[in-house]
Amino acid sequence: MTDSLRGIPDMTACPVEDRLAIQDLLVSYAHAVDSLHDLDGICAVFEEDAVFDLSGIGFPSLNGHGEIRKFFEDTFEAMAAHAHYLTNFAITAYDGDTASIRAYVIGMGKYKAGGGITVNGRYYFDVVRTSAGWKAKRYTMDFLIPIEG
Amino acid sequence: MTDSLRGIPDMTACPVEDRLAIQDLLVSYAHAVDSLHDLDGICAVFEEDAVFDLSGIGFPSLNGHGEIRKFFEDTFEAMAAHAHYLTNFAITAYDGDTASIRAYVIGMGKYKAGGGITVNGRYYFDVVRTSAGWKAKRYTMDFLIPIEG
Amino acid sequence: MTDSLRGIPDMTACPVEDRLAIQDLLVSYAHAVDSLHDLDGICAVFEEDAVFDLSGIGFPSLNGHGEIRKFFEDTFEAMAAHAHYLTNFAITAYDGDTASIRAYVIGMGKYKAGGGITVNGRYYFDVVRTSAGWKAKRYTMDFLIPIEG
Repeated sequence: MTDSLRGIPDMTACPVEDRLAIQDLLVSYAHAVDSLHDLDGICAVFEEDAVFDLSGIGFPSLNGHGEIRKFFEDTFEAMAAHAHYLTNFAITAYDGDTASIRAYVIGMGKYKAGGGITVNGRYYFDVVRTSAGWKAKRYTMDFLIPIEG
Repeated sequence: MTDSLRGIPDMTACPVEDRLAIQDLLVSYAHAVDSLHDLDGICAVFEEDAVFDLSGIGFPSLNGHGEIRKFFEDTFEAMAAHAHYLTNFAITAYDGDTASIRAYVIGMGKYKAGGGITVNGRYYFDVVRTSAGWKAKRYTMDFLIPIEG
Repeated sequence: MTDSLRGIPDMTACPVEDRLAIQDLLVSYAHAVDSLHDLDGICAVFEEDAVFDLSGIGFPSLNGHGEIRKFFEDTFEAMAAHAHYLTNFAITAYDGDTASIRAYVIGMGKYKAGGGITVNGRYYFDVVRTSAGWKAKRYTMDFLIPIEG
């Protein structure tokens, strides 16, 4: 939160520009995931050696662009449609060059084979400032509502 | 995205105030649509001769306040409830006096005749700065999840 | 809306920092509600004598931390999972030290006893600037989509 009330600069507070840029990183991730084809767009969200750990929702834990790319090649092969709605952004840590953000997600998928899935959960991104903008170095998820059935 | 990392002003980047004002325009559109009566509020979002083209989701393509107003008169006559949730805002173009924004929408409707519809899609607004604030000159949509049945 | 187009400072417009801090207050409320345990986190959102009036959606109207805390003790006892997605934030009043904000909510709950509920509605918060940041002095809700059955 800000300390603007008392006029004291809070060095740990995330400036608005950074906050929005970090939110934008998650929105661009959802946009690439929902494209069903943009593997480069997904990799551009993550550091080359990023940890992509979805074990919290029963999906794989992956390391680095190679494994992330393979995962989405397989995912895109199986899915007919995707929609990932992001809300409730909250910067939970910030030190100028690194930050952590939490967001809620409603993740909808339709399988080419028929049927679908909806995930109600949370994204947790640890991000780092790079010469090419903010990038994710670690990404995890948990459920808000457990998957049924 | 911003270039704040390198301290180089990016003349094509959308300032925060404009970004939020443009987001607010879409939120005010949803608010008017969900009021089920505020035709003036809907028209206030659009330029007098705006293109309102929902052919991407199987709805009409309309031109100008007159046709937009008639469309919502008919819509409001048929609907018992509306809810349009907007997320994943992304400024996709900006030149100071014009901009483009993409947003995700979960659009829910309940018919007076019974039953309902949920649309999972995206809004695309091309907007222009006017003496009365940002206004839409073109509005289109596509589906994220195709409508079933 | 802003008056930035004409370069005239609008003393009634909500500065970006305040706007985001007020949005954050609602996000922190949802986070505490969805924790299913954080009663202190919920009370921290509200003034000691806040009005917490959910009569607009058929829930109780409560006054002050004691009643709010008791309500959530009972709620958390009954619920197995919660997810409250907040979108469509709109500052509807601002005078520097007080403000009003409207937000859309998709509120999902799963009961320990089985079954669940989804509320599609709106939050209305009247907030006040305090030495500990923005706090809610009044909170009400209405439905966008009436509950069925």
